[in-house]
Amino acid sequence: MQRLNWGLIGGGEGSQIGPAHRLGALADGHFALAAAALDADPARGRDYGARLGIAPGRAYGDWREMLAGERGRDDRPELVTVATPNSTHFEITKAFLEAGFHVLCEKPMTMTVEEGEEIVRIAQAMERICAVNYCYSAYPMVREMRHMVASGTLGRLRLIVASFSHGHHGDAAQADNPRVRWRYDPAMAGISGQFADCGIHALHMASFIAGDEVERLSADFASTIASRALEDDAMVNFRLSNGTVGRLWTSSVAIGRQHGFDIQVFGETGGMRWASEQPGQVMYTPLGGRTQIIEKGEAGLSEDATRLSRVAIAHPEGFPMAVANIYVDLAAAIRGERTGALPLAGDGLRSMAAVHAAVASAGQQGAWVDARPPMFR
Amino acid sequence: MQRLNWGLIGGGEGSQIGPAHRLGALADGHFALAAAALDADPARGRDYGARLGIAPGRAYGDWREMLAGERGRDDRPELVTVATPNSTHFEITKAFLEAGFHVLCEKPMTMTVEEGEEIVRIAQAMERICAVNYCYSAYPMVREMRHMVASGTLGRLRLIVASFSHGHHGDAAQADNPRVRWRYDPAMAGISGQFADCGIHALHMASFIAGDEVERLSADFASTIASRALEDDAMVNFRLSNGTVGRLWTSSVAIGRQHGFDIQVFGETGGMRWASEQPGQVMYTPLGGRTQIIEKGEAGLSEDATRLSRVAIAHPEGFPMAVANIYVDLAAAIRGERTGALPLAGDGLRSMAAVHAAVASAGQQGAWVDARPPMFR
Amino acid sequence: MQRLNWGLIGGGEGSQIGPAHRLGALADGHFALAAAALDADPARGRDYGARLGIAPGRAYGDWREMLAGERGRDDRPELVTVATPNSTHFEITKAFLEAGFHVLCEKPMTMTVEEGEEIVRIAQAMERICAVNYCYSAYPMVREMRHMVASGTLGRLRLIVASFSHGHHGDAAQADNPRVRWRYDPAMAGISGQFADCGIHALHMASFIAGDEVERLSADFASTIASRALEDDAMVNFRLSNGTVGRLWTSSVAIGRQHGFDIQVFGETGGMRWASEQPGQVMYTPLGGRTQIIEKGEAGLSEDATRLSRVAIAHPEGFPMAVANIYVDLAAAIRGERTGALPLAGDGLRSMAAVHAAVASAGQQGAWVDARPPMFR
Amino acid sequence: MQRLNWGLIGGGEGSQIGPAHRLGALADGHFALAAAALDADPARGRDYGARLGIAPGRAYGDWREMLAGERGRDDRPELVTVATPNSTHFEITKAFLEAGFHVLCEKPMTMTVEEGEEIVRIAQAMERICAVNYCYSAYPMVREMRHMVASGTLGRLRLIVASFSHGHHGDAAQADNPRVRWRYDPAMAGISGQFADCGIHALHMASFIAGDEVERLSADFASTIASRALEDDAMVNFRLSNGTVGRLWTSSVAIGRQHGFDIQVFGETGGMRWASEQPGQVMYTPLGGRTQIIEKGEAGLSEDATRLSRVAIAHPEGFPMAVANIYVDLAAAIRGERTGALPLAGDGLRSMAAVHAAVASAGQQGAWVDARPPMFR
Repeated sequence: MQRLNWGLIGGGEGSQIGPAHRLGALADGHFALAAAALDADPARGRDYGARLGIAPGRAYGDWREMLAGERGRDDRPELVTVATPNSTHFEITKAFLEAGFHVLCEKPMTMTVEEGEEIVRIAQAMERICAVNYCYSAYPMVREMRHMVASGTLGRLRLIVASFSHGHHGDAAQADNPRVRWRYDPAMAGISGQFADCGIHALHMASFIAGDEVERLSADFASTIASRALEDDAMVNFRLSNGTVGRLWTSSVAIGRQHGFDIQVFGETGGMRWASEQPGQVMYTPLGGRTQIIEKGEAGLSEDATRLSRVAIAHPEGFPMAVANIYVDLAAAIRGERTGALPLAGDGLRSMAAVHAAVASAGQQGAWVDARPPMFR
Repeated sequence: MQRLNWGLIGGGEGSQIGPAHRLGALADGHFALAAAALDADPARGRDYGARLGIAPGRAYGDWREMLAGERGRDDRPELVTVATPNSTHFEITKAFLEAGFHVLCEKPMTMTVEEGEEIVRIAQAMERICAVNYCYSAYPMVREMRHMVASGTLGRLRLIVASFSHGHHGDAAQADNPRVRWRYDPAMAGISGQFADCGIHALHMASFIAGDEVERLSADFASTIASRALEDDAMVNFRLSNGTVGRLWTSSVAIGRQHGFDIQVFGETGGMRWASEQPGQVMYTPLGGRTQIIEKGEAGLSEDATRLSRVAIAHPEGFPMAVANIYVDLAAAIRGERTGALPLAGDGLRSMAAVHAAVASAGQQGAWVDARPPMFR
Repeated sequence: MQRLNWGLIGGGEGSQIGPAHRLGALADGHFALAAAALDADPARGRDYGARLGIAPGRAYGDWREMLAGERGRDDRPELVTVATPNSTHFEITKAFLEAGFHVLCEKPMTMTVEEGEEIVRIAQAMERICAVNYCYSAYPMVREMRHMVASGTLGRLRLIVASFSHGHHGDAAQADNPRVRWRYDPAMAGISGQFADCGIHALHMASFIAGDEVERLSADFASTIASRALEDDAMVNFRLSNGTVGRLWTSSVAIGRQHGFDIQVFGETGGMRWASEQPGQVMYTPLGGRTQIIEKGEAGLSEDATRLSRVAIAHPEGFPMAVANIYVDLAAAIRGERTGALPLAGDGLRSMAAVHAAVASAGQQGAWVDARPPMFR
Repeated sequence: MQRLNWGLIGGGEGSQIGPAHRLGALADGHFALAAAALDADPARGRDYGARLGIAPGRAYGDWREMLAGERGRDDRPELVTVATPNSTHFEITKAFLEAGFHVLCEKPMTMTVEEGEEIVRIAQAMERICAVNYCYSAYPMVREMRHMVASGTLGRLRLIVASFSHGHHGDAAQADNPRVRWRYDPAMAGISGQFADCGIHALHMASFIAGDEVERLSADFASTIASRALEDDAMVNFRLSNGTVGRLWTSSVAIGRQHGFDIQVFGETGGMRWASEQPGQVMYTPLGGRTQIIEKGEAGLSEDATRLSRVAIAHPEGFPMAVANIYVDLAAAIRGERTGALPLAGDGLRSMAAVHAAVASAGQQGAWVDARPPMFR
């Protein structure tokens, strides 16, 4: 199994996202870091790249330089990861896709629905993979839940209740801390704060597990800290295409909640629950029966859940392995092997459409609005 | 400490609510069962009353007979509990209040807002206690949470997130079971199903802990089992008078949830969580600090929480003791002693107004409506 | 259903045990408090009895006076509860049994094995019930576990692992507090501290669930606070008659554990776990299958578990209801009705033999010793 | 930061341990796989090495060939991992240490105490690191617990209660499955079954957190499945050098326990608990205070816990990252940088002495025996 060449844009020294991607890409030996443009400061980026063992000349000062330097090489990266500030995702992703690279883009894929549609069209036209890093979907037990729904274990889905809440932005005295403030500043974060930052992961997961798409939604946004122009708490009611009812709460002022990303899925013949702080277990209750604990690594799970689990039953596998699983699936997809359900550009587009829909609804006292991008209506 | 005479209406043989009230009233020795009208079948009611040790002549065939027989006695009940079918609560409660009895009424206190306002006026005019059995509010740790908010531990409240969800009505094949069906039949249940049945407990608790009132709300109702005329799942967003944001989910089709009545309260300087399935603990997180487990029975709790706890720290005290605590507080109130925050007719009225508001909102695509009864606007 | 007359000895004003017994006896309406000798101070006891509503002349100054006054009455108590200091249990229990009363004795039933054997013989000879208040055995789900073992759900039992640990005596600076000190003072507590106080509940439960008896044991005792003459931490390995391996840890210096009474039972075809802080659930795992949560109140439980559960599934029922269940079973036994597995004098005797055996073993470096009372060898 | 060359012995295709070590060594970019002898079958090993990207000629047929081929190279591995069958650990580790390599050896380091002492002496004489893969000790929160003890947060330790129990060998019908049987066959597993396999991890952790050594112990072993020559369940009481009481239960027939490796530590001024299935949290209770949840990644943790945590608070980091942390510390140690408390040959030796002591004690009815290796007495 030959390692695939990999390129990284962003994720410079001191960032949290850079190590997460390097660990994810390198952990299983599928990728080798061949080229990078790591930092907004060209010299710092080149220096850090060298220290990471990138060959001289392939640690670039910026992404345009990297694109120019790599596009013609025989050993050019087969996958490029875009982990730069949000507002730059669109142009970088677009450029690399158009040059024929496969891309893994951090979320949000774009800032507008129109840009999202453009990325979808380019990826289709170029026949390239454009994945978006909704990495929670690569936890083995999330894949198992998707499999359970697809195979009919829960019957027709009636209801999905999701939340992604934490309290790490709950200190009003810290609201001006630059690491917090930008999230609520339209100039930097765009049109949505907490919903775009965290809630969208929960909305993606609802769709992912259901194997269905959000059709319409109604949102109630609140800025519980008065200085914030964008919401720090949101409730979104939604409906999937097949009529499944959805409810999604997200908050950054839920003091005491650390990483409260949880989902409950209820169907005609059963229900199940999962919490990201204990990702190796699903609580499953068949209609009329007892709640059962499904454990990562137990015998008889789906092929996807089994393939993405590395260590024996009940040994925890955490967030870094979920990111690594995205790379496992990317390597398989690039090699043309069987893969699981990678989040792709269509998902990035739908997410952006949902963010815009939620903002519109919240601005109209919770009116129900269409949550689909025009191209998917 | 002389035992107080107590009368019970409804709660006949085979009901679940009768034993709960008898246990609650008798457990601490504050009350003695002196008179009763236990059953819709007069003969059955008299017979059962006799077997419960009620003196001959004071086990009545119906509530009117009981009112006639007891109102003139010197040893008449000082408290009458109304535990009959919902649609009869109003007339019985009204009649006994007007005759000068203190009353504990099961929820819902009435079926309409107008009736609720009438009960409030009568109780005021007669200077009688009219309590409503929102018994969850009498758990010691719920009282502690109310105390924490009142004493400023959490600062100004920003957000309350409550749920009361179970899956016991999730079987479509059982939807015609009479024990389930009436809940969703407007002829028997009134205008609301799951929200009026369970959700209202959570809404009362949000107000109770906050020490504030629901001002307006927006509701999304769903009947996930098609044959149901009333909702079996609901989401209600609300605002308290002081601006606190509220979110409330209730469901009877959440298969796998047994008794999912939980509440989270978030303020400027801290957050806390409580779950009715583990009622002796509150998870409390001060801003910037670690989550702490507050245990029922620990030293230093509020006078109210301490008074209503019977056994040593971490020995569980369950639902029957919460009901008993309502009676403990009623006995204290009747004796003119210090009491805690009993749920009274005003709470029953506000609940009825909120049910009507939620139904109205749900019928208007979630429009925001005033949730207050006219007399409290 | 006529209420049974009941007598209470001990449990005076300010004690914790008195209210627990009154609540337990009165909650379900099976008993009426007819006579009592409540306090070591005769005047205080008579006064308190009067305030509890006992008829004049039946609130006695001490137990001998009560025995003399009640033994000849037609309406004498059918059950007498002994809730006095430990060292007096034997003589009071003996006297009332010999006078033909049924007795519920607080644990320990006696201070010596010889006394225990005498009580067993008297109860047999008099054909009276002598129950011992191992009240944890009356939790519905403990009865369910016993039923599961008896009906073969777990196959032959291999292993039982129990603990009863708390940290409430962990403060060396409080070791001289009289409420703590007596537990570790041989003059007041007898030959054992924490094992006799708490550990013995866990040992009884192991036998109770297994439906088997402790045959031999090996103990390791420690006094982790140097001033203590008796152990505050103990580990006891044991074997049941059929060869089941047992392991029991008990501690009063486990700071942070509140009421850590837990049991795990493992057999050839399954395992299960229960924790007293969440008494309404049993975690059960069939061999080769998933862990299931068995809920108090679910359909299909054993007759005993169903009978002793008062409120609907997942509504918690706490420690006071476990005590009440002992009285429910006593009422049934006195009336000659079907009853569950009440802990009786034989259990009190076996417990005392096990305490003596553990002390002997601990004094011999953990040598294995016979744990059975001579009369049961 | 230059990557260090790394060699791997054992861990061939299809093994679980090979991927765990490769992921651990490669995840953070500290090591590059330079040489290997992966399989008992030389051809398979060479082939697999080539597929893993090892340079031609450095994928060897066996460890002796690898030692001969690598010892003289300038770019020879700076660290060699030994992940072969248990009985070969001693000779391979010895040979590579004597050739001046740093070694990470899987547990058990040796099969006898004498071999263990020899390894300790060689590592000292050669001034090489000989680490043993007690990888649970590299969880950030385990490091935090060690730090808390060392810095006096709990005061003098009184008591440690550890367990490592699972039920994966609980099926008697599977006892002849080769993957299970060898664990209980003295010819393959040596003198101990479950205690040497799992219990020893718990014993090491007790010492590791306490910063103290096991001095003496008493063991009770059981083979609950009759065909087993070695124990599948064991209880070990022990004492640390400073008098701390220890209790350790380990089982492989605890059906329903998945990965029940838990530890509780109690001192004069506090207690704490940790469970390997939720490794990112420590429950800590200061004397007289409330239980607090310490979260991986929270502000203010020790330098060691902070350094070994990769992702933000409450994002789980699982078992693979604990193994990776061993490699992080090894890289730091090899580079002469600050490191944490790596488990070293002395720990491997003490573990082997404890296994031999436990077997001896269990054979003498639980007699207390010295648990220290002769060279450390």
